[in-house]
Amino acid sequence: MATLNKIAARQEEGGKLGRFLPVLKWARRYERDDLVGDLLAGVIVAIMLVPQGMAYALLAGLPPQVGLYASIIPLILYGLLGTSRTLAVGPVAIVSLLVATGISPLAEPGSAAYVQLALTLALLAGVIQALMGFLRIGFLVNFLSHPVLAGFTSAAAIVIGFSQLKHLLGIGIPRFEHFYEQVLYAGAHAGETNLITLAIGLGGIAVLLYFKYGFARHLQRLGVPGDWVTPFSKSAPLVVVLGGTLLVWGLGLNETAGVAVVGDVPAGLPPLTMPTLDLSTWQTLLPTALVISFVGYMESISVAKALASKRRQKVEANQELIALGVANLGSTFTGGYPVTGGFSRSVVNFAAGANTGLASLITAGLIALTVIFLTPLFYFLPKAMLAAIIMVAVAGLVDVKTFRHVWAYNKADAASLIVTFVAVLALGVEKGIVAGVAAAILLFIWRTSKPHVAVVGRLGTSEIYRNVSRHPVKTCERVVAVRVDESLYFANTKYLEETVLDAVAERPAVDHFVLIGTAVNFIDASALETLESLIHQLKDAGVTLHLAAIKGPVMDRLQAIGFVEHVGEDNIHLSTHDAMQAIGCL
Amino acid sequence: MATLNKIAARQEEGGKLGRFLPVLKWARRYERDDLVGDLLAGVIVAIMLVPQGMAYALLAGLPPQVGLYASIIPLILYGLLGTSRTLAVGPVAIVSLLVATGISPLAEPGSAAYVQLALTLALLAGVIQALMGFLRIGFLVNFLSHPVLAGFTSAAAIVIGFSQLKHLLGIGIPRFEHFYEQVLYAGAHAGETNLITLAIGLGGIAVLLYFKYGFARHLQRLGVPGDWVTPFSKSAPLVVVLGGTLLVWGLGLNETAGVAVVGDVPAGLPPLTMPTLDLSTWQTLLPTALVISFVGYMESISVAKALASKRRQKVEANQELIALGVANLGSTFTGGYPVTGGFSRSVVNFAAGANTGLASLITAGLIALTVIFLTPLFYFLPKAMLAAIIMVAVAGLVDVKTFRHVWAYNKADAASLIVTFVAVLALGVEKGIVAGVAAAILLFIWRTSKPHVAVVGRLGTSEIYRNVSRHPVKTCERVVAVRVDESLYFANTKYLEETVLDAVAERPAVDHFVLIGTAVNFIDASALETLESLIHQLKDAGVTLHLAAIKGPVMDRLQAIGFVEHVGEDNIHLSTHDAMQAIGCL
Repeated sequence: MATLNKIAARQEEGGKLGRFLPVLKWARRYERDDLVGDLLAGVIVAIMLVPQGMAYALLAGLPPQVGLYASIIPLILYGLLGTSRTLAVGPVAIVSLLVATGISPLAEPGSAAYVQLALTLALLAGVIQALMGFLRIGFLVNFLSHPVLAGFTSAAAIVIGFSQLKHLLGIGIPRFEHFYEQVLYAGAHAGETNLITLAIGLGGIAVLLYFKYGFARHLQRLGVPGDWVTPFSKSAPLVVVLGGTLLVWGLGLNETAGVAVVGDVPAGLPPLTMPTLDLSTWQTLLPTALVISFVGYMESISVAKALASKRRQKVEANQELIALGVANLGSTFTGGYPVTGGFSRSVVNFAAGANTGLASLITAGLIALTVIFLTPLFYFLPKAMLAAIIMVAVAGLVDVKTFRHVWAYNKADAASLIVTFVAVLALGVEKGIVAGVAAAILLFIWRTSKPHVAVVGRLGTSEIYRNVSRHPVKTCERVVAVRVDESLYFANTKYLEETVLDAVAERPAVDHFVLIGTAVNFIDASALETLESLIHQLKDAGVTLHLAAIKGPVMDRLQAIGFVEHVGEDNIHLSTHDAMQAIGCL
Repeated sequence: MATLNKIAARQEEGGKLGRFLPVLKWARRYERDDLVGDLLAGVIVAIMLVPQGMAYALLAGLPPQVGLYASIIPLILYGLLGTSRTLAVGPVAIVSLLVATGISPLAEPGSAAYVQLALTLALLAGVIQALMGFLRIGFLVNFLSHPVLAGFTSAAAIVIGFSQLKHLLGIGIPRFEHFYEQVLYAGAHAGETNLITLAIGLGGIAVLLYFKYGFARHLQRLGVPGDWVTPFSKSAPLVVVLGGTLLVWGLGLNETAGVAVVGDVPAGLPPLTMPTLDLSTWQTLLPTALVISFVGYMESISVAKALASKRRQKVEANQELIALGVANLGSTFTGGYPVTGGFSRSVVNFAAGANTGLASLITAGLIALTVIFLTPLFYFLPKAMLAAIIMVAVAGLVDVKTFRHVWAYNKADAASLIVTFVAVLALGVEKGIVAGVAAAILLFIWRTSKPHVAVVGRLGTSEIYRNVSRHPVKTCERVVAVRVDESLYFANTKYLEETVLDAVAERPAVDHFVLIGTAVNFIDASALETLESLIHQLKDAGVTLHLAAIKGPVMDRLQAIGFVEHVGEDNIHLSTHDAMQAIGCL
């Protein structure tokens, strides 16, 4: 309780300015206790981030230092502007894949032009996110439903995994437009595998998997405190990077066995860089930038919210967009590429005890020290090891469990998942996600286009009216009362009209029609027009339309437009029972 | 009552086969009384259709006889297959415009290749409509909301009206991609106007307007029976066609004053024609064909339903799609172009007393006689007169009233109308309608993405729970009960999560959260996942989630997926009051 009150009090701090600069909220009340957690978390995340940053840069088709550059200024900016206290921003796998697919048709991966395009992508994604935040239109990302995201992530993970085959096998696989072409090519050229390279990669994978699944149990048996288990197991990337580097250096495998290594990584702080300021390039990059902004934000906000709620903290969606946008702008001008809040590193940050944005600043500082002093150490780092890190990281993203769950729950949702998954593999990541979003929207419209409709009757002598086909209820020959379980809008107006007219056509004795609105949350202009024409059509057929139990906000609008006079004041009733009483059907 | 019973009895006729061949329903019980109405209606519609058919063919960029050919076999097929007894099928203005914009970039208007493409468009539109009918997926047309259709129709009417300027002014205006280019060109070349042509056109417009607005009143004053007024006033096109033809023929205006005339129209029944069977052409035409199928069907079904309900008859949507599709296929093979049920002619058909599909058959017979015997009479028919007919017909489609109404009712709906209107004028009819549909869907998602949410409390000592901010209600410090007035689905899950977590974060004393589902009509997989994660997040924060008043069908699904055990059997309540009682907050 005391903690809760403390947090609540803190959230009040900072006021108006604090809303836009959340650092003011936590910096003023910073306590010594907070520092221990922030320091530990900052260090551990930095240890994960150095190998991951280089690996993801490799995945994006960029020189390894770009991944490190993207882990300095963006982290500082997010640390100052972000509302999450535990989100770990930086390069992530899926965004790196999107960068690769978006710009590899435009320039040679690794070339100066390619790096320039990656910067420009960070600029566009940053502007889009910051704008969405300022305009408070973050709701747009809701177009990405959970099944679509699950299908997308699973398929993207497979694409990413296969894209690393070339490093793992030590063979050159050219980029193909379609995923299956890449798989076929790899299969046809498997004979060219460099076995030493493969052995290093598989060894790395084995160690990573051990750290992931067995290590924590062993640590616990050894009596290591629970809080320390997660940080230790997450140091696996560092372990394999060190091991791989030492092995290649010690045995000279890069020269004797042709093991591909990272090579020279320039030392020193990130350079000041400028994006391309060419409108036609921007136009070309825009679709990719949009997908990166949306997908990146979704990954980030999901984990930020999940972690914040564990401590009853708040994450403000629009401020998050601004913070991520500014982080991407920072990345643009300091030699980076698009970043976002990563899932696994944020969880580690949280578990290691990060209390404020200071943890991010500490991580950034350590990465800065790394690029100043430690880059010569990466010369002998085998690329196969970075590939191993990527493959193990994305393997966990192939999400069969969600598919089974969604399939069991609802076939329509499962269909949108399958469409996205197949479309990403068959058409590529960008077209794939667009196809998935379109499928989800289509299915939603379909689902609401034929709402559940019940003809109701009176239950005994109560004031309760229930579905005639489920309950033994009493009805009048002259009246048909229908409850529509959906808001009335363009996709279901035709169905509504049909239902009403059919109900009347089937019952020649009817001269009163009661429409019950308990589950009608709004009526759009299409439905309003349909209702207006229904009144006339029913009148022509000698039937009076009544409305019953229409909700307050809905009735307000109907009143304002004069629809109430149209129906007739006397034909509007507070409840179904009132309507039946007024008609004289009791 | 007697009439109703007779109709009901008739609708039973025909059985299973009658569902697919509605002619069986009406032919068996055909009565002498029906014949008078059918005969009169058939004749009057034919009188309207001869000039309109030629005018709309001209609008579509086709030779005039194509409009007449499209008014024979399609009418017979619809008469046999259609479920509407009064729909008048044939060429209509908007579909003709869509044909012109769709195929004029591909071939020279009026050329043999152009005619061939128009046939092919009828084939594709026919196949799409028939398939949609067979697959019972007619609900897809619901994507066209009323505001979008209103915006589209108004803008299309303006485009159509301006497209006729060249005939009215007697100057050549080349086709432009954009509407405004056409307007600018016409303005720049207005000096070349053929004044005699313009005089004929304006004279035609004056007569048509008189018939539309003044004639009916004069007829009534003269004591003409009401039933006869509509048919008479609708003969206006015939009057101006006859007048114009006689004038040009009498004064030889085509030679002396250069008035453009229809010229030779081949005599004889429609030829047997074959569409292009080339896949790449089909692919090119597909978008246009889709728009024609959707827009054509919408125009047709709206008027068919409106007229049917006036006599308490039924129109079966999917059978209508099949009937229109087959009519279009008939048009394909008999020298026609895409057709649909037209608004004004159907109203005339109804008013003139059409009782069954026989009226359509009679109209078709008369048009057949026209193309066999009367085509030489059209030689001197001035094109300006056909332009006048089109302009007066479409002027009524510019729908300012709907705009005002929608604007007053709901700004979001009005926005989708404006977007469509502007996009049609700026981008063209096809891109325009796509933009409009996208806007309407976006607005709908936006509207449901932030549902109305009310924290509720107990009203006095009743079992009724109402919004705390509207009513003086009683709440407990330990409990927050929230009613969400929307189905829970991907677009609002984030908002739901935020709302719930905020409500809890703001109330540190709360340890029970009650979610009230009276207005939740379904919960999709995204929302299910959110609820699952909410349970955990709330548990982490020491709060128990309760569900109250969840609807039967929604609960069935939650039960099947095991969600109920997840929440805990004891935390699910039939009503809000039950929940409060269980928690001990009374």
